[in-house]
Amino acid sequence: MDFDAMFASQLDALKAEGNYRVFAELERRCGAFPRAHSHDENAPDEVTVWCSNDYLGMGQHPVVAQAMKDTVDQCGTGAGGTRNISGTNRHHVALEADLADLHGKEAALLFTSGYVSNWAALSTLGSRLPDAVILSDEKNHASMIEGIRHSRAQKVIWKHNDPEDLDAKLSALPANAPKIVAFESVYSMDGDICPMEEIIEVAEKHGAMTYLDEVHAVGLYGPRGGGISEARGLAHRITLIEGTLGKAFGCMGGYVTGSAALCDFIRSFASGFIFTTALPPAIAAAAQASIAHLKVSAVEREQQRCQVAKLRGMLDQRGIPHLANESHIIPVMIKDPVKCRMLADILMRDFGIYVQPINYPTVPKGTERLRLTPGPLHSDADLVHLVDALATLWKQCALSHAVA
Amino acid sequence: MDFDAMFASQLDALKAEGNYRVFAELERRCGAFPRAHSHDENAPDEVTVWCSNDYLGMGQHPVVAQAMKDTVDQCGTGAGGTRNISGTNRHHVALEADLADLHGKEAALLFTSGYVSNWAALSTLGSRLPDAVILSDEKNHASMIEGIRHSRAQKVIWKHNDPEDLDAKLSALPANAPKIVAFESVYSMDGDICPMEEIIEVAEKHGAMTYLDEVHAVGLYGPRGGGISEARGLAHRITLIEGTLGKAFGCMGGYVTGSAALCDFIRSFASGFIFTTALPPAIAAAAQASIAHLKVSAVEREQQRCQVAKLRGMLDQRGIPHLANESHIIPVMIKDPVKCRMLADILMRDFGIYVQPINYPTVPKGTERLRLTPGPLHSDADLVHLVDALATLWKQCALSHAVA
Ligand SMILES: Cc1ncc(COP(=O)(O)O)c(C=O)c1O
Ligand SMILES: Cc1ncc(COP(=O)(O)O)c(C=O)c1O
Repeated sequence: MDFDAMFASQLDALKAEGNYRVFAELERRCGAFPRAHSHDENAPDEVTVWCSNDYLGMGQHPVVAQAMKDTVDQCGTGAGGTRNISGTNRHHVALEADLADLHGKEAALLFTSGYVSNWAALSTLGSRLPDAVILSDEKNHASMIEGIRHSRAQKVIWKHNDPEDLDAKLSALPANAPKIVAFESVYSMDGDICPMEEIIEVAEKHGAMTYLDEVHAVGLYGPRGGGISEARGLAHRITLIEGTLGKAFGCMGGYVTGSAALCDFIRSFASGFIFTTALPPAIAAAAQASIAHLKVSAVEREQQRCQVAKLRGMLDQRGIPHLANESHIIPVMIKDPVKCRMLADILMRDFGIYVQPINYPTVPKGTERLRLTPGPLHSDADLVHLVDALATLWKQCALSHAVA
Repeated sequence: MDFDAMFASQLDALKAEGNYRVFAELERRCGAFPRAHSHDENAPDEVTVWCSNDYLGMGQHPVVAQAMKDTVDQCGTGAGGTRNISGTNRHHVALEADLADLHGKEAALLFTSGYVSNWAALSTLGSRLPDAVILSDEKNHASMIEGIRHSRAQKVIWKHNDPEDLDAKLSALPANAPKIVAFESVYSMDGDICPMEEIIEVAEKHGAMTYLDEVHAVGLYGPRGGGISEARGLAHRITLIEGTLGKAFGCMGGYVTGSAALCDFIRSFASGFIFTTALPPAIAAAAQASIAHLKVSAVEREQQRCQVAKLRGMLDQRGIPHLANESHIIPVMIKDPVKCRMLADILMRDFGIYVQPINYPTVPKGTERLRLTPGPLHSDADLVHLVDALATLWKQCALSHAVA
């Protein structure tokens, strides 16, 4: 049987529709973010990264880097085992306590990534709570979708950010089935923020548990970086808050927080938690340093907000259409995978601007976009350079100035 | 609905059967492996770790630690994005080339863990190859089982390490269905090694693809650490070799290697690869250093083999029963979860010996064990101390001297 031919034919289909992905090979320069060295032939040596999810540049923060290096010196490079079999280090335990504190919860549980935390937590809850029904916002992230799928629990999809639809769907379910309402605070591709209080109220009315992904909000919102649930004073009403250490905190790893019983339950039954090597202690220590810093320092968040607002204003002035939202994410809609890639290629080659074209399966076909994430390290000159480049391209390519 | 009560009742059931897990909180001391500082109340301050999967102590190797620290200085602490969206660093690309070379394959693909590599690769192959059937060895690791389950492909379980049974099962399937034979080289809990050539022959006869997990063999077997498939000169006959960077290589991460089309296929379609922050470049660089070292240095492997052989001999002399196998893993069977934990507790408290009791769900109920993994850093005095302690306990507790 010719397996390679089968693989090739599916890849050819991707290529034909313009959805084949080529990764930009970069080397971010610690101390010089958002600058990176590019290893791509068709790009200048140095480029400016406009699409990082290291939203605040914490990945180059001296305190974070030092914690990582010091812990390599103390504990070595890896954990050496699963959490159960020799892999639990003091730094994991301490980080879990810090995460619980960040969200005002009794406990927290670390995973190797945000993806694994969503997948493992939802698949465990959905499969081990008898007759559970998971109510999933229709725009939920792949990691949640796969976790729900894996659980084989009944799944009900509700309209994006629509508490009324959620209410209707919950009303249609048997009163005594355990119900889990799964949603995100900041949706990463559109940058819109959920109506959290309304969703909580609906869930509470039906006795449902709330499962909130704050991956694109932790470190960024709330006086201590506890996310939208902290900013809106709602964290105590959410059953489970999930987050990542790989975006605003600048490291790697994921977690869930909630009651002690909830975390112990997932710890004890989740395959994706149990059967895998623990995070390197040095990563845990670096994340701890980053979280501790962002609990007390608001400078990064304020400077980010400032640059985001400036960029939005400048785009408006030049007639570059972007999706409106209340977050730090600025999606410039292109709506065609080939055009989107072409624009990104020109920005990289001619302007040293790196912004990855976002295409299927990350967004639905026909909603291709350039997703900009300005941060505290982008200078005003960087903003001007970006907007000038975009304006030039808009003129050259006769792109639409109409918003989605 | 009282979710906490539901969690608590399932946890109580675990506790009642003796399968509730308590993690030992340790801090391995870089430069002093296998010594670790214990943070547990009932343990001495310093203990010797006997159950690490950092099998060769590479996690404290100066070259590996230095690569990690240097790369933190160069690139920062995290990747800052998924592989597609700003997260691909030169170190990822270089590591993938090194992994392909290690196994003599065209290409390799990195994942955040070995667990995710198995889960993502098998779920993608099983779900995207129409009518695929996955033939899974009955003792396959949880990460493979979950990947197969997630794919919803037809699954056929064959008897552990039994090529005849595999042949019979393959013969019963339609000739034109794509078939994937999934198995491991070294099974981590029993330490037995598969009859690889026979399995390959059966698979080839039926035109099936072979999927081999070498997680407990990479770095440890073969002249360059390419695993059992290298040691037996069979790597070129395996379609896909999967491995981890978190065990013998002392870091974190997982990978698959195979044809360029195969790796590109998984890269392009696997949710668990696409939708997650990439490994920190510093981890990739550390893994590269570790792999490069073990490609040319056999000292660690030889010294490990020597200590393993010595420990087996000493256990035999004192009548401590252990499972026979050809690998570096020495399972001392206890067959009772409560007794197993009690023994481990006494070893820790009275002898400063840390060996995690292995219980359900890691092994089937009734096969609880102490799993010893002697390495090049365990001294002869360490061996004597361990065997003396075990002999004392065997006498005190009137444990059986009969092998399983
Ligand atoms: C909403 C959401 N949840 C979870 C994840 C996964 O987090 P991680 O990158 O830590 O795996 C992502 C992105 O990667 C995400 O966008
Ligand atoms: C056979 C096998 N495959 C895969 C894994 C997962 O590898 P990792 O620890 O890198 O997630 C493990 C253990 O953790 C294993 O024992």
